[in-house]
Amino acid sequence: MTADPFTLLGTAFHTPERGRLEVLEEHLFCVDAQGRIAEIQAPGHPEYTATISDARRAGRLVELGEGQFLLPGLVDLHIHAPQWPQMGKALDVPLEVWLRKYTFPLEARYADLDYARAVYADLVDNLLANGTTTALYFATVHVEASVALAETCLEKGQRALVGKVVMDDPEQCPPFYRDADAASAVSDTRRFIEAVMSLDPGERPLVQPVITPRFIPSCTDAALQGLGELAEEFGCHVQTHCSESDWAKQFVEARFGQTDAASLDGFGLLTRHTILAHSNFIDGQDMDLIKEKGAGVAHCPLSNVYFANAVFPLREALDRHMHVGLGTDISGGYSPSLFDGCRNALSASRTLQSGVHAGLPAKERGAPGEPITHQEAFWLATAGGAEALDLPTGSFRVGHEFDALLIDTKASASNIHVNGADDTLDDVFQKIVLNAARANIATVWVGGRAVVGCS
Amino acid sequence: MTADPFTLLGTAFHTPERGRLEVLEEHLFCVDAQGRIAEIQAPGHPEYTATISDARRAGRLVELGEGQFLLPGLVDLHIHAPQWPQMGKALDVPLEVWLRKYTFPLEARYADLDYARAVYADLVDNLLANGTTTALYFATVHVEASVALAETCLEKGQRALVGKVVMDDPEQCPPFYRDADAASAVSDTRRFIEAVMSLDPGERPLVQPVITPRFIPSCTDAALQGLGELAEEFGCHVQTHCSESDWAKQFVEARFGQTDAASLDGFGLLTRHTILAHSNFIDGQDMDLIKEKGAGVAHCPLSNVYFANAVFPLREALDRHMHVGLGTDISGGYSPSLFDGCRNALSASRTLQSGVHAGLPAKERGAPGEPITHQEAFWLATAGGAEALDLPTGSFRVGHEFDALLIDTKASASNIHVNGADDTLDDVFQKIVLNAARANIATVWVGGRAVVGCS
Ligand SMILES: [Zn+2]
Ligand SMILES: [Zn+2]
Repeated sequence: MTADPFTLLGTAFHTPERGRLEVLEEHLFCVDAQGRIAEIQAPGHPEYTATISDARRAGRLVELGEGQFLLPGLVDLHIHAPQWPQMGKALDVPLEVWLRKYTFPLEARYADLDYARAVYADLVDNLLANGTTTALYFATVHVEASVALAETCLEKGQRALVGKVVMDDPEQCPPFYRDADAASAVSDTRRFIEAVMSLDPGERPLVQPVITPRFIPSCTDAALQGLGELAEEFGCHVQTHCSESDWAKQFVEARFGQTDAASLDGFGLLTRHTILAHSNFIDGQDMDLIKEKGAGVAHCPLSNVYFANAVFPLREALDRHMHVGLGTDISGGYSPSLFDGCRNALSASRTLQSGVHAGLPAKERGAPGEPITHQEAFWLATAGGAEALDLPTGSFRVGHEFDALLIDTKASASNIHVNGADDTLDDVFQKIVLNAARANIATVWVGGRAVVGCS
Repeated sequence: MTADPFTLLGTAFHTPERGRLEVLEEHLFCVDAQGRIAEIQAPGHPEYTATISDARRAGRLVELGEGQFLLPGLVDLHIHAPQWPQMGKALDVPLEVWLRKYTFPLEARYADLDYARAVYADLVDNLLANGTTTALYFATVHVEASVALAETCLEKGQRALVGKVVMDDPEQCPPFYRDADAASAVSDTRRFIEAVMSLDPGERPLVQPVITPRFIPSCTDAALQGLGELAEEFGCHVQTHCSESDWAKQFVEARFGQTDAASLDGFGLLTRHTILAHSNFIDGQDMDLIKEKGAGVAHCPLSNVYFANAVFPLREALDRHMHVGLGTDISGGYSPSLFDGCRNALSASRTLQSGVHAGLPAKERGAPGEPITHQEAFWLATAGGAEALDLPTGSFRVGHEFDALLIDTKASASNIHVNGADDTLDDVFQKIVLNAARANIATVWVGGRAVVGCS
């Protein structure tokens, strides 16, 4: 994919390393025809003035206005695309009811390719409008509908990793919604991988296939074995749910006599390109193993409030330098916004460390460790997620894809209120992280292409 | 204040009793010249068709469009008006630093009446745009600037209860920002009360004065005594912070040998018109006392995440039928939206009941009790808050003030996605509570006057 190169002039915020905000004040971002950042020039750069006038003369200069800032695009590490129609409903029932009465019947509808195409088009438009430039999707068991999701992302210009879901154990999965058997689950996954790889066969594909066992309890040993072999054969990404709840943790340990993470590793499903959703109940050994393999965790703080009964031990994972990013977990989480994800991660982390029960003495109330900062939360939603996926995005760096958001703090319906005289740029960044809404996202670029708004 | 009467035709959601959603499908809401609901007609009403045609002929019919719904206006039970400029910043520092370095110096600036007027105008515009039709405000120690806040609310049409803050203890308050002494704190409060009462002297004043000791630790005994006497003399509202943190709770108990709530009662400050912010650390006896006096609690779940180190025992308070509503606690809370307040109350309640620490067994992890529902959260933000303030608003009822929001689910930048064929009206309500943003609020009425948008 090539497009017209352009140069953007403005102030950018990013967190190239965890917890460290870097403000690139009035910098120039030169985007090449491949959509990559070819050069970044600070105001002191010897070519700075010439670059501006050259770009202006060529009609290729994009200048941010007052109150406008550039941010890296957001990376959603865990989202169920087919659950889009039920986002924000059915969260008042227990998990079992949620799955059997709402979620599985809804996902089963994607056997209808027209339905799938219509929902997925709406979903991708809305995620892009919320600033999600990269998403790691669970689709459904259906090969065609899952390929259609990848096609939709390619067409609309969203960077995406898409998985056809595998769930073949008849004891755990409903008859109306499961793979016929382990062999077809694995052969369908192969067919899906090859189809998605052929959609965008270049060196820097916008869409990629993902091997996606729903979670261990829904899969037979044979399916897990077969998927592990595919992971080795194709070297592609893997995603699944890991130790989300007390029930899931105990189910896997009763079945295999070891934890979720160790079991996945035994099947060859824990690799540098694996993302484990949730992982609230992993222990120190699991963390060591995940770190050793280079796998990552998709922390989904909002969904965990509804379905996990515990908070992911984020600080411990970060202290071990594990790969971690944020997931919306639509529709277990009700918000499509990773800015909400940042806010919910901050609240979850603070609440874990301070505890909740006023009846206990302060020292016994929470878990040890420091809560995360807003800079760390933003890193999780951008560079952290990108690193976990091994993708060159999430921060502004020469050679990186130009995946970015233009935040307009002065948009109508904005709740970001900047006071020029009193707020430092660090303050402005904090105000953006804490109050940015969809209404503030004026333009979204993926790989240099403006996919929302115009520039 | 009188205005043109009008009749609104559309579907409304409200929670007239705690936890019970009532859907008023295609009802007529007849608003009289005093801004009150004169009549509500269901489609089966004998006059329904005639009422519509009469209103249409008179050019007084407001019809909601597809995807538009009517909701009661939102009630913010705790907000610090002068902290508006620092909303969303300085939340990465401890409370002590937050107060000394940021908050007290900022509040001290309201000695400058021009500064106060400019900030308060911006604040009230923004709160109305977020759907806050009633607010219970802490202002600052300054009489003139606090009266200016009441004037601003009156001018812009927001229902408001405003307090001049009292903080006179030189050991706890900085020299640059406190009342000179107890006597002047009390006489200034009297002057403030009389000034606000004279602004809007009718039977149904839009703005009212509130006696506002910041919290016990910042006030001398003499000031508390004097304010209690004023509360009896004027019968007006009272507000303060109560048992917010371990530190505050312990400070008051060391000073008076009894809890915050009991101490306030001793000073005559716990009445049917008292609102206690936070109250995270109140015990069962406190709850009994608060219930007996008819006082209310402003639950501020987001602020508590940052500054309280515990969650308010909401279910216990509701089980005792205490008055409770929601506060944004700007700028201890960073969001001006009470829809965010609903979401944060849901998360806090669920987190309190399920606990946070995955290392503990599930049964030992949280506190006993059922989490609140989204219907209860919405009740807190509307009827619950209104009842706590003893104001005739918060639900659609004949004789109530017409304080209402028009929610447009199809607005641009909307994250509320309704699927006509699959979503019941109950589902739509849940989707609104979980994803409504400022961008969805098309019109806001207070006392029948359209203060945001036009109708
Ligand atoms: Zn999930
Ligand atoms: Zn407060």
